[in-house]
Amino acid sequence: MADKPTRGLADVVAASTALSDIDGAAGRLSYRGYDIHDLAGRISFEECIHLLVRGSLPTREQLDGLVNELGAARQIGPTPEAVLPYVVKSGTPMEALRTLVSSLSTDDPDAADSSPGANQRKAVRLIAQMPILVARYHATRTRGDAARLPEPDPSLGIAGNFLLQITGSMPESRTAEIFDECLVLHADHTMNASTFTARVVAATLSDMHSAITAAMGALRGPLHGGANEAVMNTLLAIPEGVDGVEPWVRQALGDGQKIMGFGHRVYKVEDPRASHLRRMSEELADMRGDRTYYEMSRRMEQVVLDVKGLRPNVDFFAATVYHYLGIPTDLFTPVFAISRMSGWTAHVIEQHLDNRLIRPDSEYIGERDQKWTPIEAR
Amino acid sequence: MADKPTRGLADVVAASTALSDIDGAAGRLSYRGYDIHDLAGRISFEECIHLLVRGSLPTREQLDGLVNELGAARQIGPTPEAVLPYVVKSGTPMEALRTLVSSLSTDDPDAADSSPGANQRKAVRLIAQMPILVARYHATRTRGDAARLPEPDPSLGIAGNFLLQITGSMPESRTAEIFDECLVLHADHTMNASTFTARVVAATLSDMHSAITAAMGALRGPLHGGANEAVMNTLLAIPEGVDGVEPWVRQALGDGQKIMGFGHRVYKVEDPRASHLRRMSEELADMRGDRTYYEMSRRMEQVVLDVKGLRPNVDFFAATVYHYLGIPTDLFTPVFAISRMSGWTAHVIEQHLDNRLIRPDSEYIGERDQKWTPIEAR
Repeated sequence: MADKPTRGLADVVAASTALSDIDGAAGRLSYRGYDIHDLAGRISFEECIHLLVRGSLPTREQLDGLVNELGAARQIGPTPEAVLPYVVKSGTPMEALRTLVSSLSTDDPDAADSSPGANQRKAVRLIAQMPILVARYHATRTRGDAARLPEPDPSLGIAGNFLLQITGSMPESRTAEIFDECLVLHADHTMNASTFTARVVAATLSDMHSAITAAMGALRGPLHGGANEAVMNTLLAIPEGVDGVEPWVRQALGDGQKIMGFGHRVYKVEDPRASHLRRMSEELADMRGDRTYYEMSRRMEQVVLDVKGLRPNVDFFAATVYHYLGIPTDLFTPVFAISRMSGWTAHVIEQHLDNRLIRPDSEYIGERDQKWTPIEAR
Repeated sequence: MADKPTRGLADVVAASTALSDIDGAAGRLSYRGYDIHDLAGRISFEECIHLLVRGSLPTREQLDGLVNELGAARQIGPTPEAVLPYVVKSGTPMEALRTLVSSLSTDDPDAADSSPGANQRKAVRLIAQMPILVARYHATRTRGDAARLPEPDPSLGIAGNFLLQITGSMPESRTAEIFDECLVLHADHTMNASTFTARVVAATLSDMHSAITAAMGALRGPLHGGANEAVMNTLLAIPEGVDGVEPWVRQALGDGQKIMGFGHRVYKVEDPRASHLRRMSEELADMRGDRTYYEMSRRMEQVVLDVKGLRPNVDFFAATVYHYLGIPTDLFTPVFAISRMSGWTAHVIEQHLDNRLIRPDSEYIGERDQKWTPIEAR
């Protein structure tokens, strides 16, 4: 038990979980004991959802069952539909989506029920509804309404249907595969700030929607989910392409600026997700016939390693991957939320199954022994 | 640095604060160095807001300035107004209010700005808007619309205006004073679960509305803000009045049930807020000419102390106080939120002024070294 504050709770073990594990020294990430390198490119996001939320890699029959449930759960109710035209005036997509996700509970028949069965049903609904909410939000803000959004195609998974709804055309099959792999890579990551937020809320025995809405608020922060957008905005801001990278980065670092997308509190070596995203960024660059942003990223990676000794994290190459996939930059954090919804909901289920209120102490650093005086005497 | 999980982060110092301090062994609570016994009944909720959010007990001029700002900030915008008729179908008031509070950001001109000045303005707006949201929610669900709600009376503070809007008639001045004292007593309490939630969200450098919406979700939990409602529902469920209390409590404890409103993770002696609320409960009972629920509470207090050795916490006598004030039982947690909004917003301001990401570790307790197999082989 610490008497001094452990600022940021760094290295404090706050919860037990069977969902994911990080070996920061070895650069290893696993979901329920499966190394991420074993899963990336081999399982679909739907299989990943089954692994996290239901506890195992599914058989074909289990997967078909889950896919049917996800398909049936896609509809969003009258409350978020009524909210949409108002919240598109919000400053950022994550601000609008926080209110939209919160509003989903009003039409959810299990909203107030936190039993294991109800939590499983709500997890499936939230995972299915999240990409639809993002697509309907984007359609409403860009075209004024979401009515003509392409219907989800039953032959596509969550990844393919999201690309279909965001870009307006059927994705090439390799493109959908790559985005699917991105969703697997972002699905869970132990006690990151948004997941921890969800567990703190769930630990009051509050409900799934309250915990997930809270997590959306945390993911919005530039120190958490906002980093991938910042990476892309940096690349877009650098003039003169690849040759402009080194002087820009040295100048920024010299000015004391933080370059987003590098370093991680837990990993001491390269984030294992970064290698997959680097490969996907290059493949998409070649498919699109324009390697500029990929090459700029590689150059930036070298300069930041030389100057600061920092390696790219999950956000760094995700930025160019999403860009090449045609996803608008300000939807990068919502895309993160589409994937992480699987981890968040699984953590809420796990917290409720073996709960204790999360209530830390604080250190008092203010003035002491103040004496009240009547207002006229102040 | 702990290697083993400190379940629930009990006794782990998670943050430094100059806002409030608890001495659990002595049963002492202070706001910015002022003992709660020195403040209760002596300062108005508006003075308390100034103390927490602006850092000092106000001079008359400072208080007048804050009261004017709060009055001007009461209006709620078109987004929550559009949301209201939908979210009244929610299962609980806190579920509806979570979405309403989130939706406030859309119409807030400072929503995306987390500078100290913007945070101060947003704190004042959120504190002023919260009681209006609760009153409009209650009017919409009971009468179908909020249009005929009494306008706030400039001669009343937040406490009096809330009673005016909820009960439909001008409160007696002593009644408004008592409710005002309740709001002071609930305003802040170090790292309780909702305040800690708000700080975890704010520590990603996310915005005030995201942090407060998250706190609303945590306060909703029955282990946190929900306890005062549970106390009242227990009293309402006991047959035969005062004489029914002892057999009911002994039976419930014998069946392994938890009696809500007793014990506290931090206080080892009586919660210092409980003594004030006990006094107010008795005064209101005499004013109403019906001591039944007060006497039932006293009997329950004795039995639980005899059998379990537990003393009442802040929620226990708050229940009968709010009941005597004419507040519907399912609005007790929203009333807690009206008060705690002052503490939450002050903690977000404090977190942003000296920030570090809050990102704990977790202990992995699941299976290891799983090997992926193709779906057909599972």
